[in-house]
Amino acid sequence: KLPHNNGMNGNGVHHVSVRAHVSVNPAKLKSHRQRWNVRPSEMSKKTLNPIRAIVDGMKLTPNPEKPMIALSIGDPTVFGNLPTDDTVLQAMKEAIDSHKYNGYAPSVGYQKSREAVSNFYSCPEAPLEGKDVILTSGCSQAIELAISVLCNPGDNILVPRPGFSLYKTLAVSMGIQVKHYNLLPEKSWEIDLQHLESLIDDKTACLIVNNPSNPCGSVFTKDHQHKILAVASRNCIPILVDEIYGDMVFPGCDFQPLAPLSSDVPILSCGGLAKRWLVPGWRMGWILIHDRNDIFGTGIREGLIKLSQRILGPCTVVQGALESILNDTPPEFYQGTISFLKSNSEICFSELSTVPGLNPVMPTGAMYIMVGIEMEHFPDFQNDVEFTERLVTEQSVFCLPATAFEYPNFFRIVVTVPEEMMIEACIRIREFCARHYRPRSQDSHELDQ
Amino acid sequence: KLPHNNGMNGNGVHHVSVRAHVSVNPAKLKSHRQRWNVRPSEMSKKTLNPIRAIVDGMKLTPNPEKPMIALSIGDPTVFGNLPTDDTVLQAMKEAIDSHKYNGYAPSVGYQKSREAVSNFYSCPEAPLEGKDVILTSGCSQAIELAISVLCNPGDNILVPRPGFSLYKTLAVSMGIQVKHYNLLPEKSWEIDLQHLESLIDDKTACLIVNNPSNPCGSVFTKDHQHKILAVASRNCIPILVDEIYGDMVFPGCDFQPLAPLSSDVPILSCGGLAKRWLVPGWRMGWILIHDRNDIFGTGIREGLIKLSQRILGPCTVVQGALESILNDTPPEFYQGTISFLKSNSEICFSELSTVPGLNPVMPTGAMYIMVGIEMEHFPDFQNDVEFTERLVTEQSVFCLPATAFEYPNFFRIVVTVPEEMMIEACIRIREFCARHYRPRSQDSHELDQ
Ligand SMILES: Cc1ncc(COP(=O)(O)O)c(C=O)c1O
Ligand SMILES: Cc1ncc(COP(=O)(O)O)c(C=O)c1O
Repeated sequence: KLPHNNGMNGNGVHHVSVRAHVSVNPAKLKSHRQRWNVRPSEMSKKTLNPIRAIVDGMKLTPNPEKPMIALSIGDPTVFGNLPTDDTVLQAMKEAIDSHKYNGYAPSVGYQKSREAVSNFYSCPEAPLEGKDVILTSGCSQAIELAISVLCNPGDNILVPRPGFSLYKTLAVSMGIQVKHYNLLPEKSWEIDLQHLESLIDDKTACLIVNNPSNPCGSVFTKDHQHKILAVASRNCIPILVDEIYGDMVFPGCDFQPLAPLSSDVPILSCGGLAKRWLVPGWRMGWILIHDRNDIFGTGIREGLIKLSQRILGPCTVVQGALESILNDTPPEFYQGTISFLKSNSEICFSELSTVPGLNPVMPTGAMYIMVGIEMEHFPDFQNDVEFTERLVTEQSVFCLPATAFEYPNFFRIVVTVPEEMMIEACIRIREFCARHYRPRSQDSHELDQ
Repeated sequence: KLPHNNGMNGNGVHHVSVRAHVSVNPAKLKSHRQRWNVRPSEMSKKTLNPIRAIVDGMKLTPNPEKPMIALSIGDPTVFGNLPTDDTVLQAMKEAIDSHKYNGYAPSVGYQKSREAVSNFYSCPEAPLEGKDVILTSGCSQAIELAISVLCNPGDNILVPRPGFSLYKTLAVSMGIQVKHYNLLPEKSWEIDLQHLESLIDDKTACLIVNNPSNPCGSVFTKDHQHKILAVASRNCIPILVDEIYGDMVFPGCDFQPLAPLSSDVPILSCGGLAKRWLVPGWRMGWILIHDRNDIFGTGIREGLIKLSQRILGPCTVVQGALESILNDTPPEFYQGTISFLKSNSEICFSELSTVPGLNPVMPTGAMYIMVGIEMEHFPDFQNDVEFTERLVTEQSVFCLPATAFEYPNFFRIVVTVPEEMMIEACIRIREFCARHYRPRSQDSHELDQ
């Protein structure tokens, strides 16, 4: 049988020249392609990035009379107002000058660097050693490895809604089903635990928790986390907790890592340098393996080590700098970032909470605010995607529609932009809403042109 | 149905507390786990690293009277005799000082860095632009992405024997079958083209070529590469060429990249900074997309872009330094490395070619020599693994048994070690062979104790 598909990509026809050594016995002629037909794999086609899919589908033409303000980018470094600390840069230069970090590191990272991370995060209730740390190429790869080691195709995982889209992107590409559990905006984005538990079945391989949250900017209390753990414990589901925004919480709020609260549930905690140290491009992430009851056992650890050998870990220069980055960065640096984020959040929240039709939810950490849109009062727009699209066209302000986080009728604002921009953006959002707000939903069809 | 498996890893039994809201209707009680049973995924179990598997299974206790000489490690930086160039380190420090490379880059890399690579490798017969370059976390990730985009589970790929083990590791983990085509030591490790072509069937998704070769140190001629392309063209098979040792060829030999020779076969060429620039830890690799006949079309390009979004590319500092690394590193640096590798190869080759029972194959590039063992003359050992194991026990010299490259009865020597070590190692290998060599194979059983 000779395939005769017409290639989607290219159509170079090739005439087969039957060669002497195979023409001897035509019965042995094996089937092979006669045309070029090179197609992207199913896995690449299943690697879907909803943010890209939505943003690429939007008509984002700013109003030429107003300079663009992008409140959409989860990169705290883009505006230059949040530089990393000098200690961090100095540590990198010292790592380079030492000439010690040019060769291959072990695929899970240098022991010394792993220990720097374990010392930094170890606590009496959840002690960590170097062997409990896997260094990865960003928190993204930490999440990829954690999902890869815990789940098989056909399994399902539980992910937050609204939530960071990478969990679904990765899972779907691996043939793992995604079930969304609800976060409750009216309860500071706590998990709807009953809903969460109702989703669990015997194919549930992992619960993903993200705290502090992208896109919500919420931070779970100790008490709430105890309840999450109880659900996982009752159902014997391990947890992947994405704590990349760990410790990025506003004064007055405490960041409580999940693992120290767990008495039995094994936890893979994913983190990295990206957010707190403001160097997302450096691609330094990690998995902390918390397994005090030996439920992961050696299997999961060895699985993670094997998986890490595929691409051999993060850049050694950053690994070399890690100990000094973690130990020598002054507390003022962290505090400076946080007070800036808090102040910008308060500006944004107080501005937008008086805008008719908008319901911002005050964050307590991370670098985002979610803003609810009372769609019934904005009959000009079908949904959050149209709303944010027109906000660009008219006001040159771009916020991500929360449909990108599986949560329609909200949009997300990134609060890392310079204060003046934040203020100006809020003024424009107010103006935009004033223009499109219709007090009573029954009028909507009349006014909608 | 309630699963009652006894977990391999851990055995924490958990008593189910039936909660009010589910106990109302026992018929609705969903099945869920009652015991912890967290096991590593099939994919992690299928991610097998043959080098690790073999080396971990070896008893490697050096002779306490002789200092260890490791000729096994494919890391040119370990002995400190092959530092990278100062230009390369300077470029990194400038990238750090610029404060421009801390944020996220596009997942395929900064446009400027992609253009630096395309300019460096572009030639009239195979022109490249920035869009034809995907920056990756090492050549390893380049290979991973290239295989991932071209192959589906159930497909097969053709890989060299002997060959670099990562191809198989990655493919098998993805459910892709691996077929080995033979390289011919007596023809300077050229491909047995007839064997290669006999392996092709309608499930063959990709031909992997590695030139210059790890472990062979061989470099293909232009003529041979034309023939490889002819096989690929006749059968409409795209090529993944691993050219990580590109340009690392000895004086008198020419490195010919594959793509400029191709008239129709689409090629993904994988490379990186690891070897030629002697910074393998920095994890900077790339894919060059060569597709002048538009056979990959947009599908493969978009697939690669999508896949790159999973972990978001290599470290931005190295990306920032890339242009200067490629353009400003002085030719003397490259020449220095090469003449060192050549001189060490010649020492090793001439020493070992007069050792009875050994048949080294003189390399022309990369950083390895393969040495054939006439096993019939070494009745003390079953195979190359035992041979190299005892070489450690007796002489404290460690070479990788070529079983790690699917090629028994050979071992591989890394020629990046300092010259004195290379000389000393050859003396010890000679001594070892002299002790164990038996001139006539029929005596073997008598002498074997
Ligand atoms: C919740 C969350 N997890 C993980 C990541 C990815 O982090 P990294 O850049 O280290 O891969 C992000 C990035 O925005 C994030 O918001
Ligand atoms: C043939 C070959 N390809 C790829 C690689 C991996 O390169 P990198 O360290 O850039 O991932 C190696 C490393 O030894 C190699 O020998």
